[in-house]
Amino acid sequence: MNIREDILKIARQAKMASQELANLSSSTKNKALVRMAESIEKNRERIIEENKKDVNLAKKKELSKALIDRLTLDEKRIRQMSKSLEEIVSIEDPIGKIENIRKRPNGLQIGKMVVPLGVIGIVYEARPNVTIDAAALCLKAGNATILRGGSEAICSNIILADLLKKAGQETGLPSGSIQLIKTTDRRAVTEMLKLNAYIDVIIPRGGEELIRVVMENSTIPVIKHYKGICHIYVDEEADLKMAEEISFNAKVQRPGVCNAMETLLINEKIAAQFLPGMIKRLQEAAVEIRGDEKTCQITRGIKKASEEDWQTEYLDLILSIKVVEGIEEAINHINNYGSHHSDAIITNNYAKSRQFLQKIDSAAVYVNASTRFTDGAEFGLGAEIGISTQKLHARGPMGVNELTSTKFIIWGDGQIRK
Amino acid sequence: MNIREDILKIARQAKMASQELANLSSSTKNKALVRMAESIEKNRERIIEENKKDVNLAKKKELSKALIDRLTLDEKRIRQMSKSLEEIVSIEDPIGKIENIRKRPNGLQIGKMVVPLGVIGIVYEARPNVTIDAAALCLKAGNATILRGGSEAICSNIILADLLKKAGQETGLPSGSIQLIKTTDRRAVTEMLKLNAYIDVIIPRGGEELIRVVMENSTIPVIKHYKGICHIYVDEEADLKMAEEISFNAKVQRPGVCNAMETLLINEKIAAQFLPGMIKRLQEAAVEIRGDEKTCQITRGIKKASEEDWQTEYLDLILSIKVVEGIEEAINHINNYGSHHSDAIITNNYAKSRQFLQKIDSAAVYVNASTRFTDGAEFGLGAEIGISTQKLHARGPMGVNELTSTKFIIWGDGQIRK
Repeated sequence: MNIREDILKIARQAKMASQELANLSSSTKNKALVRMAESIEKNRERIIEENKKDVNLAKKKELSKALIDRLTLDEKRIRQMSKSLEEIVSIEDPIGKIENIRKRPNGLQIGKMVVPLGVIGIVYEARPNVTIDAAALCLKAGNATILRGGSEAICSNIILADLLKKAGQETGLPSGSIQLIKTTDRRAVTEMLKLNAYIDVIIPRGGEELIRVVMENSTIPVIKHYKGICHIYVDEEADLKMAEEISFNAKVQRPGVCNAMETLLINEKIAAQFLPGMIKRLQEAAVEIRGDEKTCQITRGIKKASEEDWQTEYLDLILSIKVVEGIEEAINHINNYGSHHSDAIITNNYAKSRQFLQKIDSAAVYVNASTRFTDGAEFGLGAEIGISTQKLHARGPMGVNELTSTKFIIWGDGQIRK
Repeated sequence: MNIREDILKIARQAKMASQELANLSSSTKNKALVRMAESIEKNRERIIEENKKDVNLAKKKELSKALIDRLTLDEKRIRQMSKSLEEIVSIEDPIGKIENIRKRPNGLQIGKMVVPLGVIGIVYEARPNVTIDAAALCLKAGNATILRGGSEAICSNIILADLLKKAGQETGLPSGSIQLIKTTDRRAVTEMLKLNAYIDVIIPRGGEELIRVVMENSTIPVIKHYKGICHIYVDEEADLKMAEEISFNAKVQRPGVCNAMETLLINEKIAAQFLPGMIKRLQEAAVEIRGDEKTCQITRGIKKASEEDWQTEYLDLILSIKVVEGIEEAINHINNYGSHHSDAIITNNYAKSRQFLQKIDSAAVYVNASTRFTDGAEFGLGAEIGISTQKLHARGPMGVNELTSTKFIIWGDGQIRK
């Protein structure tokens, strides 16, 4: 069988499963999730064994340390997977809720019922935990899932998906609820992206190149999870101690994630006062600083930032710094160079806090807090499938509610249109 | 200048305008809409003159009567345009609302602010009223609009867009708020569909071919407005008089629209009792009937329906009829052959009404009412930009609220992530 037929078969099975999944009770879905958690726990050693094959190959290929780190599973990370499944059990099931019922003058009652999206395709890179989180969240919202992970994690993903599938079969999920594309042939993705008759949404999670390929090839609606070029702007009326703590946290606490700060903007009136201490502290934490001209004048021996720096998601202990004339320049810089992910102002000025919240065009806009909080759990949404950086359908951290659609339901007693 | 540069320039201007539009007050937006309504009224004769050029050319080209009808503007239709603008003035402005503010254990306050989508591209066919409705609704929600109407309506669209633009300039809208692509070269559309750096959403309104071209070429998120193959299922426990009135209304009252019924499904237990009278009444209203085998047995002299009939949006006085064994067969037929637009059951059985509402996978699902009600105004949403038949972002009639996105806003007092 060729790839096209393989993928088509998977998509058809997913579509069939989705029709049944849409009407499953919460308790059936939760039973399956509990069984999945148990099965992951019970098969810890087999999972680690399969994962080692991936890790060894990645090392042999000399892939990046960051990739190998994200790829590697140990007991603690596997425990985290089953814990994540248990958390998804405890989230409220959104499906079947009817919102906003109103009565029209002609007596029709009209409401909106929350329904699953249908079939969701997840295209991701070398993080095996996405296999679990994505499949489980989609299931909770009554969707069928087609998973396509990075080839570097193929052995890990195959065993994880098999365990999920088996647990599902044992607890009454329709077959086809959770499927993994097992071929690592890249054509599988481009074939999948054309199956808009069967797949309702594609969620790509990964780097620039992955997102580009999906956006350019998909005839299916996409919810993209793009990079984070996050900013903090320190206003001249900021509490400078607070500004330092927040900036340090946003850069250093976990630099490899999308909500970490990549560019610090600082008002020129306080730059000479603020930057030397801030830069010293960052350098002591091994952060490389790249400054604009004024920053380099204030603190000697700093590398000069290039135009490219303002557009770069370092995901590393690197920070670009720019001195700005005021809030307008800061806002323009963020809206033009940023990735519309998470940005913060540090200020004690009321009007400027409002101006910043109003005018920054990003998924999450902060006053006086670290950008690192952009996360489903931190926002109180429960588990998240990722952070959407687009404006359509869902923006910012996406939980189970964002994996649903609605339909209008109308109760009449014989109404006809005049 | 070539087409690519032309379109790029338009898109850039729209992007710039959108940043200003996002922060305009409701009163400025409403003033512009009022001026637009006045200008349309005042320039009625010029509009009709320009429209005549389009209509004459369409007649010369022997385009379909339906198209010429949709294309033609007269005094009444122009009055309707300015009335529609006035209605949009009276809709509540959704922008800036902050929903669902909650306080996290660490003291962060997190809410979701309603914001515009940004730049919306509308691709439509030969209906000049879409030029007005789309631009005005997008403006009300703070979006910049790029309009691309069908070449058959180009003279009408140019004058209408010019009047809107001028009214906007006089009342303080940023230039670039409303722009029409004036070339009728088809490459303009494909160029536009690739500008995801500037355009946030594409809304295609039109037939199968238009939607297909947009879906296949767009790197911009799309909200599609697809055809309506709407069904009514008459259950064996229906009030047959009600079933007849509703079916007649759904087919005959306005057959050329997407929420008109195209297929009637009837339970076999009552088919012999119901169909002869129903078919006679429909035939007297000039409806052509195409029946399955059982329908043809019950009523002689009817054309036999082909497999293709069940998948056809007639938009005309044609109806396909199928006798089914029961509600399961009806639901399967609707979910498999329908276009997931609007479908109704006629029944007095409580359990079956629930089953139908639950299992039909369509934007609007009815019990005991005509499918013809699927419409923004009838649903009480105010003016509509169309009826979305996809599950992402918006499903069913789309009003001004569906032309918005959100951003998370977070108020802190120095919180950092541990």
